[in-house]
Amino acid sequence: MQQDGALTRTIAQRAIDAKTKPLGALGRLEEIAVRLSLLQQTLTPTVDRACICVFGADHGVADEGVSAYPRAVTAEMMRNFERGGAAINVIARANAVDVEVVDVGVDADLSDLTGIRHAKVRNGSRNFAVEPAMTDSELADALAVGAASVDRATRRGYHIVGFGEMGIGNTSAASAVLSALTGQPTSHTVGRGTGVSDEALAQKREIIDRSLALHANAIGTRDGRECLRHLGGLELAAIAGATLEGARQGLALVADGFISTVAVLCAIRIATTEFEELLPVLRNSLFFAHRSTELGHGLALEACGTALGTTVWPLLDLEMRLGEGTGAALAVPLLRSAATVMRDMATFASANVSAGDRLDEHSVAVASS
Amino acid sequence: MQQDGALTRTIAQRAIDAKTKPLGALGRLEEIAVRLSLLQQTLTPTVDRACICVFGADHGVADEGVSAYPRAVTAEMMRNFERGGAAINVIARANAVDVEVVDVGVDADLSDLTGIRHAKVRNGSRNFAVEPAMTDSELADALAVGAASVDRATRRGYHIVGFGEMGIGNTSAASAVLSALTGQPTSHTVGRGTGVSDEALAQKREIIDRSLALHANAIGTRDGRECLRHLGGLELAAIAGATLEGARQGLALVADGFISTVAVLCAIRIATTEFEELLPVLRNSLFFAHRSTELGHGLALEACGTALGTTVWPLLDLEMRLGEGTGAALAVPLLRSAATVMRDMATFASANVSAGDRLDEHSVAVASS
Repeated sequence: MQQDGALTRTIAQRAIDAKTKPLGALGRLEEIAVRLSLLQQTLTPTVDRACICVFGADHGVADEGVSAYPRAVTAEMMRNFERGGAAINVIARANAVDVEVVDVGVDADLSDLTGIRHAKVRNGSRNFAVEPAMTDSELADALAVGAASVDRATRRGYHIVGFGEMGIGNTSAASAVLSALTGQPTSHTVGRGTGVSDEALAQKREIIDRSLALHANAIGTRDGRECLRHLGGLELAAIAGATLEGARQGLALVADGFISTVAVLCAIRIATTEFEELLPVLRNSLFFAHRSTELGHGLALEACGTALGTTVWPLLDLEMRLGEGTGAALAVPLLRSAATVMRDMATFASANVSAGDRLDEHSVAVASS
Repeated sequence: MQQDGALTRTIAQRAIDAKTKPLGALGRLEEIAVRLSLLQQTLTPTVDRACICVFGADHGVADEGVSAYPRAVTAEMMRNFERGGAAINVIARANAVDVEVVDVGVDADLSDLTGIRHAKVRNGSRNFAVEPAMTDSELADALAVGAASVDRATRRGYHIVGFGEMGIGNTSAASAVLSALTGQPTSHTVGRGTGVSDEALAQKREIIDRSLALHANAIGTRDGRECLRHLGGLELAAIAGATLEGARQGLALVADGFISTVAVLCAIRIATTEFEELLPVLRNSLFFAHRSTELGHGLALEACGTALGTTVWPLLDLEMRLGEGTGAALAVPLLRSAATVMRDMATFASANVSAGDRLDEHSVAVASS
């Protein structure tokens, strides 16, 4: 357990234990509250101002017919986001969460859309079934797009940023990256995405198996950056860049479902080799919104835990598999609730409530301080 | 599956299927949205205005030493609620949920508190280890207190009401009622409550075993009303009354943790024998906020499902065991999010998004209607 400057885990835990409730009775909320206090180095943490960054991009591998939806849907959904009609729009509004939509690589001219950020690196990633999904400089540019979103969020006063995505074909990219990073077979990483048939699922696995073989040399060391570059997508890279920048800025961060979690895993693995100083921050700053029903998500969550050296638990399990950041938006109220428990609840001492059998020297020390 | 007037489940399901997302991709949220539509008989359901009713009462059985906390804590926590310092206060505020605190049976003079409702039926229930917890008229009065809270909530324009409680000794009452209603042994229903020791847990089970034997004749038929009267408490009865009145008024209702769920189970069982017409409403109106770590909660949830003839799934699993309605307050944003999905999301048709392989006659029919 790392020391986090002046406010240690012990101090934060004692502060929670002094609140008017049985010890540990708020379960996961207490652990979240402690982590937010460590991250923000205060016993009055705040995650009121929340934003979901939704990165949209197309995928060359969609040409292989891996999705139930035509490629045009990426652009159509970007227009839907801009008009406020998509799931992420309405769920974010219901939870007082803002949304920033970023075109980091949609294969269509969206320049008429004034309500989104235009940061197109390329008209879709390259088809990783025949060549690396990105060049070095395309990957660097996409990482920078994500970092810029987080930087903007910080300047605008957001305390917490969630990561969403839109991109026809991106469960294929995320599954390929997950197999590359973990060495697990595609039978454990490739699922139905938006809902392909049995036959299409088998074909999807075959295409990804072939792609993993094609890039075997480059991804052999399971390096985060190389796996992302060869098999990922521009929106996955943007989320990875956003995660690294979010850790640098000490923001609370929320991964969404399968694709978002795999992108965050890339960021953790990149941090492990390139920015080790970010790992202790990520342990406190990263929250995982929900357990998706997409096949590889459990494995992706475990891999994040392994890479962070901690236990990872998704906050919600609502059998969702939509993406867009919808899970992240739903998790924000839980994080806000945890923060207010630490920030605003009375203590046994301040409220003159008898502490009963649970009263021990530890809590007395806090209650009377 | 019952018909719910003009707006049928088929119509509601088709409306959700037409939204711009893969079929079923919002998981549980979709089922919630459908139920809210059936309950409110509209494709634009609303649960924006939410209130948690927290009923406080003392328990004669606390004299047997079943809790880790002294009995005085019930009154002390009522004062904490009134000052806004308890967990339910801060969590409700963080989620734009109002709180009504009702003294239905606290064993203390709280008449100086202007911020709570005064509806004391008795200074605590009777000790069920020696006599029935309530007389017939005390039970009727406590049921009426709960019904009055819901009636007030309806008149104030709330769309959704959650049920919280405070009462030292009330896990003992809830466990006894649960054993009586289900016939399950106390090893399956009696847990640690606020956190008693191994020794105290054994003693708690012994006292409840003895009480179940004492009232064996009266509770032998597992009648909801008789089990509640002999072994329950005034706040459990208030929640049961609130549940029945909530169903009459067609409100969305949220059970909290163990005690709240057992009280709701009493209401369902009373409805089964006395107000059968309420059962179809309860199937749509009742939501279960979370899975508590208190031992008997899983059994209580199952028993609710059995009594309703449906599957019951708690919305959250955050390892909480506090009560007060804290879980219910945390679940409200999920219900609001589900409502907005039905109410506000664009359809494939309205947003001009290609429906891909998932396009079938069913969704076309909706999209073009």
